[in-house]
Amino acid sequence: MNHDIYQEPLVSRYTSREMQALFSERFKFTTWRRCWVALAEAQHELGLELVSREMVDELKSHVEDVDFAAAAKKEKEIRHDVMAHVHVYGQQCPKAEAIIHLGATSQFVVCNTDLIIQKKALRLIKKALVNVIANLADFCRSYKDMATLGFTHYQPAQPTTVGKRNTLYIQDLLMDLDYIEALERQLKARGAKGTVGTQATFIELFHGDHAKVRELDRRVAEKLGFDQVFPVTGQTYPRKLDMKTAETLAGIGASAHKFAVDLRLLSNLKVQEEPFEQKQVGSSAMAYKRNPMRSERMTGLARKLMGLPADFAATAANQWFERTLDDSAIRRMDMAQAFLLTDAILRLYVNITSGMVVYPKQIEKHLRAELPFMATEKILMACVEQGKSRQEMHEVIREHSVAAGLAVKEEGLDNDLLVRLAKDERIPFSLGTLEKLIGNYQEFTGRAPQQTEEFLDEVVAPVLEKHKDLLGGLDSSLKV
Amino acid sequence: MNHDIYQEPLVSRYTSREMQALFSERFKFTTWRRCWVALAEAQHELGLELVSREMVDELKSHVEDVDFAAAAKKEKEIRHDVMAHVHVYGQQCPKAEAIIHLGATSQFVVCNTDLIIQKKALRLIKKALVNVIANLADFCRSYKDMATLGFTHYQPAQPTTVGKRNTLYIQDLLMDLDYIEALERQLKARGAKGTVGTQATFIELFHGDHAKVRELDRRVAEKLGFDQVFPVTGQTYPRKLDMKTAETLAGIGASAHKFAVDLRLLSNLKVQEEPFEQKQVGSSAMAYKRNPMRSERMTGLARKLMGLPADFAATAANQWFERTLDDSAIRRMDMAQAFLLTDAILRLYVNITSGMVVYPKQIEKHLRAELPFMATEKILMACVEQGKSRQEMHEVIREHSVAAGLAVKEEGLDNDLLVRLAKDERIPFSLGTLEKLIGNYQEFTGRAPQQTEEFLDEVVAPVLEKHKDLLGGLDSSLKV
Amino acid sequence: MNHDIYQEPLVSRYTSREMQALFSERFKFTTWRRCWVALAEAQHELGLELVSREMVDELKSHVEDVDFAAAAKKEKEIRHDVMAHVHVYGQQCPKAEAIIHLGATSQFVVCNTDLIIQKKALRLIKKALVNVIANLADFCRSYKDMATLGFTHYQPAQPTTVGKRNTLYIQDLLMDLDYIEALERQLKARGAKGTVGTQATFIELFHGDHAKVRELDRRVAEKLGFDQVFPVTGQTYPRKLDMKTAETLAGIGASAHKFAVDLRLLSNLKVQEEPFEQKQVGSSAMAYKRNPMRSERMTGLARKLMGLPADFAATAANQWFERTLDDSAIRRMDMAQAFLLTDAILRLYVNITSGMVVYPKQIEKHLRAELPFMATEKILMACVEQGKSRQEMHEVIREHSVAAGLAVKEEGLDNDLLVRLAKDERIPFSLGTLEKLIGNYQEFTGRAPQQTEEFLDEVVAPVLEKHKDLLGGLDSSLKV
Amino acid sequence: MNHDIYQEPLVSRYTSREMQALFSERFKFTTWRRCWVALAEAQHELGLELVSREMVDELKSHVEDVDFAAAAKKEKEIRHDVMAHVHVYGQQCPKAEAIIHLGATSQFVVCNTDLIIQKKALRLIKKALVNVIANLADFCRSYKDMATLGFTHYQPAQPTTVGKRNTLYIQDLLMDLDYIEALERQLKARGAKGTVGTQATFIELFHGDHAKVRELDRRVAEKLGFDQVFPVTGQTYPRKLDMKTAETLAGIGASAHKFAVDLRLLSNLKVQEEPFEQKQVGSSAMAYKRNPMRSERMTGLARKLMGLPADFAATAANQWFERTLDDSAIRRMDMAQAFLLTDAILRLYVNITSGMVVYPKQIEKHLRAELPFMATEKILMACVEQGKSRQEMHEVIREHSVAAGLAVKEEGLDNDLLVRLAKDERIPFSLGTLEKLIGNYQEFTGRAPQQTEEFLDEVVAPVLEKHKDLLGGLDSSLKV
Repeated sequence: MNHDIYQEPLVSRYTSREMQALFSERFKFTTWRRCWVALAEAQHELGLELVSREMVDELKSHVEDVDFAAAAKKEKEIRHDVMAHVHVYGQQCPKAEAIIHLGATSQFVVCNTDLIIQKKALRLIKKALVNVIANLADFCRSYKDMATLGFTHYQPAQPTTVGKRNTLYIQDLLMDLDYIEALERQLKARGAKGTVGTQATFIELFHGDHAKVRELDRRVAEKLGFDQVFPVTGQTYPRKLDMKTAETLAGIGASAHKFAVDLRLLSNLKVQEEPFEQKQVGSSAMAYKRNPMRSERMTGLARKLMGLPADFAATAANQWFERTLDDSAIRRMDMAQAFLLTDAILRLYVNITSGMVVYPKQIEKHLRAELPFMATEKILMACVEQGKSRQEMHEVIREHSVAAGLAVKEEGLDNDLLVRLAKDERIPFSLGTLEKLIGNYQEFTGRAPQQTEEFLDEVVAPVLEKHKDLLGGLDSSLKV
Repeated sequence: MNHDIYQEPLVSRYTSREMQALFSERFKFTTWRRCWVALAEAQHELGLELVSREMVDELKSHVEDVDFAAAAKKEKEIRHDVMAHVHVYGQQCPKAEAIIHLGATSQFVVCNTDLIIQKKALRLIKKALVNVIANLADFCRSYKDMATLGFTHYQPAQPTTVGKRNTLYIQDLLMDLDYIEALERQLKARGAKGTVGTQATFIELFHGDHAKVRELDRRVAEKLGFDQVFPVTGQTYPRKLDMKTAETLAGIGASAHKFAVDLRLLSNLKVQEEPFEQKQVGSSAMAYKRNPMRSERMTGLARKLMGLPADFAATAANQWFERTLDDSAIRRMDMAQAFLLTDAILRLYVNITSGMVVYPKQIEKHLRAELPFMATEKILMACVEQGKSRQEMHEVIREHSVAAGLAVKEEGLDNDLLVRLAKDERIPFSLGTLEKLIGNYQEFTGRAPQQTEEFLDEVVAPVLEKHKDLLGGLDSSLKV
Repeated sequence: MNHDIYQEPLVSRYTSREMQALFSERFKFTTWRRCWVALAEAQHELGLELVSREMVDELKSHVEDVDFAAAAKKEKEIRHDVMAHVHVYGQQCPKAEAIIHLGATSQFVVCNTDLIIQKKALRLIKKALVNVIANLADFCRSYKDMATLGFTHYQPAQPTTVGKRNTLYIQDLLMDLDYIEALERQLKARGAKGTVGTQATFIELFHGDHAKVRELDRRVAEKLGFDQVFPVTGQTYPRKLDMKTAETLAGIGASAHKFAVDLRLLSNLKVQEEPFEQKQVGSSAMAYKRNPMRSERMTGLARKLMGLPADFAATAANQWFERTLDDSAIRRMDMAQAFLLTDAILRLYVNITSGMVVYPKQIEKHLRAELPFMATEKILMACVEQGKSRQEMHEVIREHSVAAGLAVKEEGLDNDLLVRLAKDERIPFSLGTLEKLIGNYQEFTGRAPQQTEEFLDEVVAPVLEKHKDLLGGLDSSLKV
Repeated sequence: MNHDIYQEPLVSRYTSREMQALFSERFKFTTWRRCWVALAEAQHELGLELVSREMVDELKSHVEDVDFAAAAKKEKEIRHDVMAHVHVYGQQCPKAEAIIHLGATSQFVVCNTDLIIQKKALRLIKKALVNVIANLADFCRSYKDMATLGFTHYQPAQPTTVGKRNTLYIQDLLMDLDYIEALERQLKARGAKGTVGTQATFIELFHGDHAKVRELDRRVAEKLGFDQVFPVTGQTYPRKLDMKTAETLAGIGASAHKFAVDLRLLSNLKVQEEPFEQKQVGSSAMAYKRNPMRSERMTGLARKLMGLPADFAATAANQWFERTLDDSAIRRMDMAQAFLLTDAILRLYVNITSGMVVYPKQIEKHLRAELPFMATEKILMACVEQGKSRQEMHEVIREHSVAAGLAVKEEGLDNDLLVRLAKDERIPFSLGTLEKLIGNYQEFTGRAPQQTEEFLDEVVAPVLEKHKDLLGGLDSSLKV
């Protein structure tokens, strides 16, 4: 690592080696060569005499041995990266030299390679996502019955269960998975389309044989691993696709962000926490702290990720005609960043959900303090069942609740709401009846345990079954 | 119209009455009542004795006659819009008063109504979108053969055809259509879930009968027109869905923006133009101008639309636990704006594509000026076929091209590239051969006509056939 | 209010009448007329014979009586708003008819009016901002000494004081005030520049007298209340200014957002709260709740506000040459929204800070629970003063702290950190010494009281003194 | 360069070595040490006995020799970068080991170092910006008189001059310069504030001497090169400042983007171009092309830059209480990216403006084609001076103009507007008079030459004089 220049922290700190490799020069330039091989081979197969099997074989034999230094030198000279690599490849393949890139424009290799990278990167993302879902599903099942205080407005509301709350994170991620699969259906090869997308040079090479040129397009795509090819393009594949890619990834960012913020709040409440490593130093000055630093990091990374789709939208929206180059530098950065950020976030998410901690005693403490308040809805319902007006009872209960809440805040006293209600003659219940009525907090969780179970069994399990090949085998340890 | 306060221009200037109505108070509050009817009816059907058929009928008979003034007055008093409407509805339905909203929380009506509005609004968008696609398809077919100068870097490149270029806009819109349909699959009812999503009050009302409460949820959704209901929710439906809705609409914005910018450039080139009305004044000072004001307006509206998904992402990402209210004011504005902007954009898009103008003489003029340049790729290919090195020929041709181009710019002369090439002995062709070789510009369009036809027949036609019920019947005249 | 179409909630729900009026049609069109008067009068004063004093007086006498209906009708006909208003004004001023708008282009009235609106709107914003600062300053002074738990990572950290914490919100707002003043310096008149900014028609009218045309520009600006005029423009004033305006307002949004989020968290902690009105209904189902709905609303409004600068940046960045119209629809919406949102946010901010509540008993409870942890830094320092290695002591204390913290969470016990430390022989203090050492929590607030006082006296007071004319006189009651 | 992992293209392709160095680990970690030296020295000077002059000297002697490997190893172990560097520094400075970081929290070094980096980076930006302004000023002066077609709606409008148009880019940049200077005034040291900003540990160390602790804060700031220190902070300096920094830089992005887009359009019009290097290859397939690749790159880089402020706004708005760590990862990336992008953009801007090319023959060609149209305003004015109604004449001229324009587009004919007007009896001029009236295009430039001169002399020159120390000495050659 060079200490004298800026180092992208996504690489040096946060991401998996697999994702870094996909966005490396090695992967890019060898894939360019694979594109050239696919083109030459398809041309040969379709009877183009200029291109011999021997040439194709020569090209194939040099796919991996890219001479980076020579290419960089040539690029510096001619200011054109693709032509520089054509040149260097040609030096290594003297027989095929004249037919490398035959009929193609730079975007033949650039676009097809980008699409291959994205496809593979999306697969890595999908794998990590499925593993997070699996971890969360296990967690939800373990805690499906454990009552915990629900919050609306970040004020105590009715109880829910720990498992039920966590199903909401899964549901968000399942939507992300749906959109990943929608995107996979949109990801097509750019194929062999030529300078402005008309395949003019190819129709020239094949002397007007439209069927052959169409087949060339299809066959190149197939050789590169795609089962579809964009039917029409300008010079590049439609930049609109990038916008959808970024949105799909940003969706994961939003899901992870909500989870992470909740976990940071839960950590303050001492209810649910991320795992904490033995030697981790919380703070240089406050040695005792156990800061939710993974969740905080997720929050920040997700925020950045959610900021990227706007860039891609602007690029798609501002491409002029068959193509302008204002897409180049920004995509070079943003596409890599979008995938690397998502990779970093999901690795954190896997890491956290592999060892999430719950504190039942604290949960109980919170519930007990709020129990009389939580019961107000139940009391309200009971009053209505006794024939009282909902609106009137709502108002009576509200007044006493506010007063009881204020006493807690202002005088530090315990919650005496039931006593206040029992004293009010508009309320048709004695203190004893009220106490019996409200029962214990477990009764306030409604269908939370059942919902959790139904959701895991009916919705989550089939998804995990479908993607069982993606489960496990992930290294999600943290670097820093 | 009140001239003394700000008026939202989306309503006063740009959008269709249908879309405005969906986001009106009338539609909102009558739909709230429909939600209450659905709830009461389902409760009655499932045997809840508190709720009689008579009550349900009374509620049904007052769905339409919302007393806006009374509700506003009550809201001012109690600072709670839903409770205010419960109150006013109750005044109109004395028998049912006590059971309106029974077991429900505000978000029961708010969320379900929002989802109904979005579903209907999405249908309007889809209709307009399909009509734009149909218009563009007609246009593409008419101009599929007409050669026109292609541009990369906004510099003359190879020719394409007018029809082919316009297929690219269709392809973008088809991707939008795919995502609309993906979104339709995500749009589920919020159903009857209660305060924090646990259905606690409903399980109370039904004395622990889980099957009935589950059925209540499903049945309410069905009565409101949904075939699916979110399996789990907090207090509201997942805000992540809004993010996807905004992205789907913003996708249309990006597609429209690219089209509009291209059309503004084409208008400068005098190649392709939006229709222009007889009485339209181009400029107060420059009476002769025919400004592409529709496309410019589309550009600006689309830019705003593309800015909205970030808001929804931030809201989804920052909802705490079962729900926080920081979603309320922003969604109230942004959801309406997103649909209204898309409506405005698509109405413009329909309007423009209904009467788009093409200028063949100007197109020809552009092509003639660039013909020798355009032929360089053809010449390069011919040289390679003669056994010359691609790289070397590329360099030779480049030098002469640059020089010829410079002469045009600096001296205002005609393009003499062929003469220059013929004089260079490295080029294996005479001037006569070169001239014959380059032929006429129509030959340079490659497979553009065929691609256009194939795309229209194989890709577009099936989509239009599938959505033929949505074709036609749109008023896309402009207000201002 | 029309219930059948969408109503912008910023107007119907959240903003002040003053701000709504600035963005009304009435203010716009009467200001257009003021621009025409200023132009005619300056032309007359500079000796242009075509324009008589009588004409100017006629124009002046009809500034206020805009016929909205007639103008709307004319606009519908000719599709040009400015020409429509020229026409209607001309009907009312038969003598001056021929010289209205003489030499001007539409943007003469449009741009200058926009700038006047912005200037006045900025003044309203500044007034509200200064009042928030004053409220917060009073609050900080009242609570400058009251110790309260500080948080980093939303985990208990060292104590600070209630007043000190709130100074941070003031400091953010002071930065906003600086940027408002920077913006005031940038806000210049667009003046009388003509179609593409060259003043060609004016130099024509004044027969080549450059000094007079320059003076015309200056004089028109002065008559419209500006002391500066943009030295050069295209057709419009530079759109870059709008970007700076939006950023300035969004800055206020960010400041308010941080405050509002903190207050929502403080509300959960029962430490500090927004005022709550007697009749306010917290929830339809949970009558007892006192939800921080103002702060939540601020959060959402601020989020939207922070999303707007990107729109303006894109518009500024994409204006082509002397002007393109893609700025029109988006500015029409976004400029109004930016000011209205800021107005709504600051009204809420004034409202909240006018009656903010603090709960000393709860504050004390939090402090007591964390006191031993908070003291770890003090103990660490004491160990170092005894010659121990900072790193080693840090590690020892950290281990015991983590263990003690875990015991609290897992077993619901009280904090026994001091006992653990006293038992460890590496720590050079007995339990008694440790207890004496840590003292009471008030001692842990360091210089917080002093910093608060110094900040209020040295930084805030001079600012409030400078703007004392803006203090008071604000209606910040809430509509809904 | 490692070819197996992702390489940030900002570093590998686009930015200056100076800017890369500021964001390097070397600069960061040596500056951390400078912060520790400043703290120790100030503590010593203020009489803290624990800290001796010898210790300070030892620390000073090891500022530069950071052992990166040892620090990385330690960080991996304890998961805390600052503590890791304290440890490694301590190993190198055995005498001072115990007092390194005395009383400080991590953010003491992190924040102060960040602010130092930003201050220096801002200086680099300012230098580049001033040089662009100087280049453009030279260009404007050279071309102040050369008439060129102005455009509104990207349709031909009145002429302006080449110099005048380019003054608009300068004016935008001057606004950026104002905001850089505003930012410089906001950039203060974070100073020595402690864990939550209360300076608790320092007041402990100095046994309650408030004056000394205040002086410590000031003195540390001064030693680090700041003349101001934030009066109050939480754990970090206010994140709102970052938002302003990002906006300031994004402003430059917007200015550059507008310029770049205009230049790309001008390049299509063959009017004004970026320099082009001898060996540059325009396209692999179209050898003749001279693509405006620098301007296109600027466009894309600026788009990304303009997307960053929203990230910083969100971070500032979502910091909880005294500090949360969700700022860390995102700032680490975004602050570097913001400065590196601005650096890249301005280097390109300097490069382009150093050799911008103008084509007078093409400019003349455009003007001649539009001359009769351009003259319509002059004719309109002349008609009004003859007593005709402005509105009526506007309509007459509009009709003929539209017809003449249509003939050009549809039939490829020359512009015959004057003939049409002369034939219309409502127009009070013969063809001869009309021809004389319209004169030559130079006459249509109004005050453009004078405005240019006045602007350069009165506005730009004083700014360049003020910053003359920043002029020159920039390497703006391109890498790729």
